[in-house]
Amino acid sequence: MLRAREIARRAAVGQDAAAAELKRSAELISAKDGDVRAFASRPAMLAPGTGPLAGIACGVKDIIDTAGLPTGMGSPIYDGWQPRADAPIVMALKAAGATVAGKTQTTAFAFLDPAPTRNPHELDASPGGSSAGSAAAVAAGMIPLALGTQTGGSVIRPAAYCGVAAIKPSYALLPTVGVKPFSWSLDTVGLMAASADDLGFALAALTGRSDLDASPAELKGLRIGISRQDFAGASDPASDAALKRVADLAASAGAKLVDLASPAALAEAFQAHGPLQDFEAVQALAWEYAEHRASLPPKLRAYLESARATTPRQYDEARRLSRRGRDACRDVFAEVDVVISHAAPGEAPATLASTGDSKFNRLWTLLGTPCATIPLMRGPRGLPVSFQIIGRFGHDDHVIAVAKALEKLVGSIG
Amino acid sequence: MLRAREIARRAAVGQDAAAAELKRSAELISAKDGDVRAFASRPAMLAPGTGPLAGIACGVKDIIDTAGLPTGMGSPIYDGWQPRADAPIVMALKAAGATVAGKTQTTAFAFLDPAPTRNPHELDASPGGSSAGSAAAVAAGMIPLALGTQTGGSVIRPAAYCGVAAIKPSYALLPTVGVKPFSWSLDTVGLMAASADDLGFALAALTGRSDLDASPAELKGLRIGISRQDFAGASDPASDAALKRVADLAASAGAKLVDLASPAALAEAFQAHGPLQDFEAVQALAWEYAEHRASLPPKLRAYLESARATTPRQYDEARRLSRRGRDACRDVFAEVDVVISHAAPGEAPATLASTGDSKFNRLWTLLGTPCATIPLMRGPRGLPVSFQIIGRFGHDDHVIAVAKALEKLVGSIG
Repeated sequence: MLRAREIARRAAVGQDAAAAELKRSAELISAKDGDVRAFASRPAMLAPGTGPLAGIACGVKDIIDTAGLPTGMGSPIYDGWQPRADAPIVMALKAAGATVAGKTQTTAFAFLDPAPTRNPHELDASPGGSSAGSAAAVAAGMIPLALGTQTGGSVIRPAAYCGVAAIKPSYALLPTVGVKPFSWSLDTVGLMAASADDLGFALAALTGRSDLDASPAELKGLRIGISRQDFAGASDPASDAALKRVADLAASAGAKLVDLASPAALAEAFQAHGPLQDFEAVQALAWEYAEHRASLPPKLRAYLESARATTPRQYDEARRLSRRGRDACRDVFAEVDVVISHAAPGEAPATLASTGDSKFNRLWTLLGTPCATIPLMRGPRGLPVSFQIIGRFGHDDHVIAVAKALEKLVGSIG
Repeated sequence: MLRAREIARRAAVGQDAAAAELKRSAELISAKDGDVRAFASRPAMLAPGTGPLAGIACGVKDIIDTAGLPTGMGSPIYDGWQPRADAPIVMALKAAGATVAGKTQTTAFAFLDPAPTRNPHELDASPGGSSAGSAAAVAAGMIPLALGTQTGGSVIRPAAYCGVAAIKPSYALLPTVGVKPFSWSLDTVGLMAASADDLGFALAALTGRSDLDASPAELKGLRIGISRQDFAGASDPASDAALKRVADLAASAGAKLVDLASPAALAEAFQAHGPLQDFEAVQALAWEYAEHRASLPPKLRAYLESARATTPRQYDEARRLSRRGRDACRDVFAEVDVVISHAAPGEAPATLASTGDSKFNRLWTLLGTPCATIPLMRGPRGLPVSFQIIGRFGHDDHVIAVAKALEKLVGSIG
């Protein structure tokens, strides 16, 4: 994979060096994207900017507005649609010197109907969703950085399936203005890169928060809670093995591993994700549903038809349970410094017809807590399997620090 | 002014009756808007929908996306800009049977540079801002309902200046998707109408929350806190007289009036509105500032230039103070049922060069509490002067109920 920090270091020599890095990304995209199909549209050329991310070619999920490229939302309803303005997160990329490498494929409106993208590790396996193109483009080594969004598990899951590092930051750390909403209480912009080290580097540059480029955490004495999220259902042996592997590694480095029982309030908050998202998605996609129903893909159409039954009362109750869940989450983080859990049920589905399951991601999206994943190991089918690190709301720096410490232990799955 | 509930009652007879009501609004707009300049664009004809708001011609602030009309943001940068989709709140209007009467003038990007709109009570006086056209169109009796948005005081202030009823509901009660953001933690969609009774009727129809069409509150024994918001600075004698008048009326009806001392946490939260808005506005308008700076109007340009100095640390501190303010606000509402305060410093500015001052509105926008205003009286210059009612977060029904009880006492300034 392409390393963002190394590329930036080489590009810092000057504009020619930055241009050369971008040219390399463009060539890699041209060479590989015929198979992987990670990009929905690309600019004619990649011009270098100035700033800490100069020379970094960044993929931008195709539900994020760009003034210079169409924004198709993964749907024929928006085919060729050209927004007026760049979304603030795109302006932040540019202000930091990065260059938009292209728009990356998304499932339609970031829901479950698959994008055309394929998993670089096995072209007939799912790359996950909804940020499919972003994960696959980084995994295939075309680009060192990509933007995704997560409403259920749309950043962490495709990252785990494709074997890349990713962070879903604390809710609203990165602005969602100019991002097509699905559920505004949940929608969160995240990043994908080759490593947690690269994530910290890029996130600090994008936000002007230098503490996010954190040093690796001291694992000795670190209190790590293990959450199996029983309320979410079963995991595959592959994901169980991944969680055991990282727990053993951390324990061997002196971390204190604690098995967490899930408080009832977290199980209830997990259940609340459904009605919360349902009620908001029906509103967010009201125009598309009313005016272009026949053009919606089948899973999304069926979902919206069913979600319409959600009442204001059910929504209010879901919000109440979310608040209670956030309180319970604070109690959890009084006991442990970070939580580790499954990033996905197992390896990527062996089909392009499913984007997999977000059941192990939804609770944390609802709670707004930062979540990160890093490349860890391979499962029985030879596909990447990983885990996620969850931190306290607003402590994204700590999640990055722990992820960096663990990835040093893990080495690289290459 | 045109009464939404009465119009809906007449229109309920059938499509012809609804069409006749819409035709009347269209004729009133044609007759009056040459002077008032409340509309930025209008459809060729107003076709009736079906639902509780059939026959209601509704103005839509021109920062709210509409698929059938351009959305100009009050700025040449978006001149003729045609969004792809209707914003969810516009779809909610249509689903309830209302008809978009046109896009109402807004100050550029809902900031302080005046819109072309004039105050119907005195054409050389300010209608306020930023939802200038919405307030003026209702005040002039062109339409019975209009959508506005408030980030500081952009719904309540123009409503008070123009002498109409308005509600800025609890934060996020109405969806802001498809509304041009200024500060996403603050931006709130609100309604303007002839009376609190009409507001409750329309808000219930738009949200499917029938409890919002509340009966008038029982004033006898109601605990009403009076907040002069000393931390915000001085009010004019006209606004002081308005607050005294409504307090006396309420007391005469048996309400218990309590002078509230402002806790320090509320004064600090008031101050936090600045950096919170600054940090988000710089991001929300990053593309416009970077690519079209010369086309930004002077107040907004100077504001963004200055706001860029706000650091992530200042923003985080402002968010912390906001949370503390919300805690303090809950304590206030343990003591009183509602709070009354100034809606604006006084009568509308006697100039079209200023939209007035939002200092008495900003705290409540920050706290996310519902605020309503109703027509009350005239000031020394013959312009409307009013007050606002503030309720506990999520208790919009109660604010409407109290507003309805008070407007019964007040009668009409017609």
